[in-house]
Amino acid sequence: MAIVLGANQYGKAEVRVVHVSRDGGTHEITDLNVSVTLSGDLAATHLTGDNSGVLTTDTQKNTVFALAKEHGVGQIEDFALLLARHFVASQDAITFARVTVEQYPWERLGGHSFARSGREVRTATASHDGRDWWVRSGLHDLVVLNSAGSEFWGFPRDRYTTLAETTDRILATAVNASWRHAAVAGPGHGGTDWGKSYAGARDLMLEAFADTHSYSLQQMLFAMGRRVLEGRPEIAEIRLSLPNRHHFDVDMSAFGLANDGEVFYAADRPYGLIEGTVTRDDAPPPGKAW
Amino acid sequence: MAIVLGANQYGKAEVRVVHVSRDGGTHEITDLNVSVTLSGDLAATHLTGDNSGVLTTDTQKNTVFALAKEHGVGQIEDFALLLARHFVASQDAITFARVTVEQYPWERLGGHSFARSGREVRTATASHDGRDWWVRSGLHDLVVLNSAGSEFWGFPRDRYTTLAETTDRILATAVNASWRHAAVAGPGHGGTDWGKSYAGARDLMLEAFADTHSYSLQQMLFAMGRRVLEGRPEIAEIRLSLPNRHHFDVDMSAFGLANDGEVFYAADRPYGLIEGTVTRDDAPPPGKAW
Amino acid sequence: MAIVLGANQYGKAEVRVVHVSRDGGTHEITDLNVSVTLSGDLAATHLTGDNSGVLTTDTQKNTVFALAKEHGVGQIEDFALLLARHFVASQDAITFARVTVEQYPWERLGGHSFARSGREVRTATASHDGRDWWVRSGLHDLVVLNSAGSEFWGFPRDRYTTLAETTDRILATAVNASWRHAAVAGPGHGGTDWGKSYAGARDLMLEAFADTHSYSLQQMLFAMGRRVLEGRPEIAEIRLSLPNRHHFDVDMSAFGLANDGEVFYAADRPYGLIEGTVTRDDAPPPGKAW
Amino acid sequence: MAIVLGANQYGKAEVRVVHVSRDGGTHEITDLNVSVTLSGDLAATHLTGDNSGVLTTDTQKNTVFALAKEHGVGQIEDFALLLARHFVASQDAITFARVTVEQYPWERLGGHSFARSGREVRTATASHDGRDWWVRSGLHDLVVLNSAGSEFWGFPRDRYTTLAETTDRILATAVNASWRHAAVAGPGHGGTDWGKSYAGARDLMLEAFADTHSYSLQQMLFAMGRRVLEGRPEIAEIRLSLPNRHHFDVDMSAFGLANDGEVFYAADRPYGLIEGTVTRDDAPPPGKAW
Repeated sequence: MAIVLGANQYGKAEVRVVHVSRDGGTHEITDLNVSVTLSGDLAATHLTGDNSGVLTTDTQKNTVFALAKEHGVGQIEDFALLLARHFVASQDAITFARVTVEQYPWERLGGHSFARSGREVRTATASHDGRDWWVRSGLHDLVVLNSAGSEFWGFPRDRYTTLAETTDRILATAVNASWRHAAVAGPGHGGTDWGKSYAGARDLMLEAFADTHSYSLQQMLFAMGRRVLEGRPEIAEIRLSLPNRHHFDVDMSAFGLANDGEVFYAADRPYGLIEGTVTRDDAPPPGKAW
Repeated sequence: MAIVLGANQYGKAEVRVVHVSRDGGTHEITDLNVSVTLSGDLAATHLTGDNSGVLTTDTQKNTVFALAKEHGVGQIEDFALLLARHFVASQDAITFARVTVEQYPWERLGGHSFARSGREVRTATASHDGRDWWVRSGLHDLVVLNSAGSEFWGFPRDRYTTLAETTDRILATAVNASWRHAAVAGPGHGGTDWGKSYAGARDLMLEAFADTHSYSLQQMLFAMGRRVLEGRPEIAEIRLSLPNRHHFDVDMSAFGLANDGEVFYAADRPYGLIEGTVTRDDAPPPGKAW
Repeated sequence: MAIVLGANQYGKAEVRVVHVSRDGGTHEITDLNVSVTLSGDLAATHLTGDNSGVLTTDTQKNTVFALAKEHGVGQIEDFALLLARHFVASQDAITFARVTVEQYPWERLGGHSFARSGREVRTATASHDGRDWWVRSGLHDLVVLNSAGSEFWGFPRDRYTTLAETTDRILATAVNASWRHAAVAGPGHGGTDWGKSYAGARDLMLEAFADTHSYSLQQMLFAMGRRVLEGRPEIAEIRLSLPNRHHFDVDMSAFGLANDGEVFYAADRPYGLIEGTVTRDDAPPPGKAW
Repeated sequence: MAIVLGANQYGKAEVRVVHVSRDGGTHEITDLNVSVTLSGDLAATHLTGDNSGVLTTDTQKNTVFALAKEHGVGQIEDFALLLARHFVASQDAITFARVTVEQYPWERLGGHSFARSGREVRTATASHDGRDWWVRSGLHDLVVLNSAGSEFWGFPRDRYTTLAETTDRILATAVNASWRHAAVAGPGHGGTDWGKSYAGARDLMLEAFADTHSYSLQQMLFAMGRRVLEGRPEIAEIRLSLPNRHHFDVDMSAFGLANDGEVFYAADRPYGLIEGTVTRDDAPPPGKAW
């Protein structure tokens, strides 16, 4: 019996970089949170402290800033691909890189003036092993609520079941989604219009949420995922994680009041958590995308 | 020498109430976080545990739900006034009530479908002592950024000063503001159109932020406050708390790159914090508004 | 009618400084979060952007680091006094300084090895106006729970009251306390042994919490405050803010189980919030301590 | 091409249950956060909204409370096993359950009085597929710091590398660890003394942290993992995730001060993140443990 090193990785997390591009008096800003994860031949540093293969996380941070300067940022999928290629191509010890970018949305107030728009955070993750490329796009914290069109009944009842069946409840969730693109070329090879693809997928999820009469949050999850795959052929698979943000009817019978679906208590914890994958049956294998 | 009870208050904090109003297939939702603070003749419970004057915080919570049902919510200033009056009017021991309401914004996706809009949180605080009324409106977490039109120079330099002067920096902040209304009647007496007043004040702050060329965040604070008072005669005084969300130029000279105001590092801590009041010189006294 | 500048202040918030002192192989670490607030003759920067009186918040940050190097940190009350004096004494425009320090506790694992001890965060606030000195000490996030010895009954019942009376409940809170010292000389003039005073006050609060049979959280608040003042003559006044961390009995009657005070649900929101001051009737006036 | 449902699971997250056991005047409290994840034959609810196989998350919450009442809690590994067995054994549609429990530590102040001890949060995860059992134990938020005995040099330097080599730096991290037990019988079959095993593993990690002279955080990770496996034969594998909580020397040369390893700035973001597995080469296969 020996004690050995297993899977391992390292990197710099949460590099907060803001890029400003200027076209006369009209500016554009791109506000990002970039995290880098590298793996490869890293046994030496673990076993002996020999760091000759360890590109420092400080350098990774500097590289995020430098590549933003040299290439601009553009679509976050492209920026993630660029960074992933850089680390694998330039470091012998590094055989795999995964770069995740979060983008915070801003609205324009004026030529060089902006207000943060708090709706969803857009995400992209690019992975590269020196030969193949994988890209996921996604979002988190897209909070949505249906005040009608949601039922929940027909579930099994055991000794501990007290929940009443309902044909009219509030359904609310914070959408966390990540979808895998079917075919990805390396940086600079064109292909998907990332911005259009992202906006399309997001809008399809919102449409599905708004027009699906649901009998469970699982059903809503599948409906949202299916809608994205139906409408966006470039997307092979989507994974959703949907916390059920419970809104409970307040029982006012003790006050002599009938609460007819008007007043709800928004609970924090505990919460249901519904997670699932929707995919094409002929999707290419996921490889190292996730 | 004796040890005595000084100022004291109590209440229920953060009652998360969601109100749905239905007009056929079109719903409206109001999403609130309500906190109640009461004070009065409360020595007995502190000194002996005699709770005969202590309206329980559980009852306060129930009251928030019940009044939302009985009266609807409407503008949050009105709902806060209604609650403040209720507690002072109905409880002998309670001589002062302050009710603070936060409102989370939502956008419509469909007749009964909504997405949370993350920009700012609107706030209202109503105070009542049995005779007089005070109302403050406000907001927090309105994050804004100017990528030009901000300078900072001419400050004193002492032994510990290393900051370079600049005629071009990013200015970013998360606006926290609360403004006091000049004259307030009790609930149901009309007067201010709270929704219009709020939207007006917010828009004036955004306009001032976007069109002010600033030499300090303090100057921006005063400009924003003055703009609100100039445009909204119903507002007597405004207090702003502006964290300076520093965006530092990344020095890339070590990489042989010139960073010409393109790439910035968004720092978390520490941060400057600029706080100030802008008021009319003939404003009515604040009384118990704050 | 004119629009004028009212009260204002500014400073650097949350400077995270860690000081290491070395005595051979045995180290001591002091882990602080320092916030500075300055006020004085600051109209010019607000009205015209003239920054000639504005010691930059960047310099304030540097000063925190430099004074930690030049003087060490020692007790946080002393470090706060030192910083407050520095800013008022060295800057003509600054007539008042308030410095707040949070200290995170660590336990020793070895000569130079430490584990963060998560119990409470110790705090100190020193204020100085060029002539007088005020010091407050305190703590926050000291979470305590009594599983017996807490009753709550005898409260008024109105239309909205549903809470049952109880002679046996869990009482839990996160103690936030700040206490004002009666007489304070400037930095370096001796006087209070701050470390001993702090430990004494904290221990007295914990003792009072553990041995008080309570009928309300208000009663517990007063008991804790009184105990501190009885035992620490150097303390003139204490203010406590006690969130009621509700632990609700889970009703298991629907499962055919009797829950006899064994299983509780720890709720997040809403929560009661009890706030009060306990003081000596001959306490010196608070001046600018708060 | 068809769009199909892929992997999916659901459950109730973050059930905050507090258990009190009474032995005369001396109480014991157990403070838990329990999350349940179930999977199995759940296609119907996703595809049609047929909930006949969906044990509601509300029932899962009730079950956590009920089993705490009926069986007590004891060691969290046992409680997690008990819950996992219950869901798989009692629900035809559920073929796999994973239950994760977080335990918050408390110190005794008196017979029924306690203070929350903020050091680490203990965790346990039990998984069950109807036949086999897997248990992981672990902890998170164990924050440790070495003020000596840490070097970092010999790393590659590329165009973007500016970090100086050092033979004396602060090394600090928040340990997040999860370790897999080699052989697990179902609930109630004895075997591992979970409490002793947990305390042993934690203490071995702290010892390794305190007495390892490190050349990289990766080396420290491996040393901590190896120490646990050497000392605890019941543990087959350990995975650690170690954020590098950077403490940067403050450069005071501009103030004419030499900072000789005394004053550090504790940074928030970005941070290095070092993750790795240490395992026995003859460890049993992980199955569905992770």
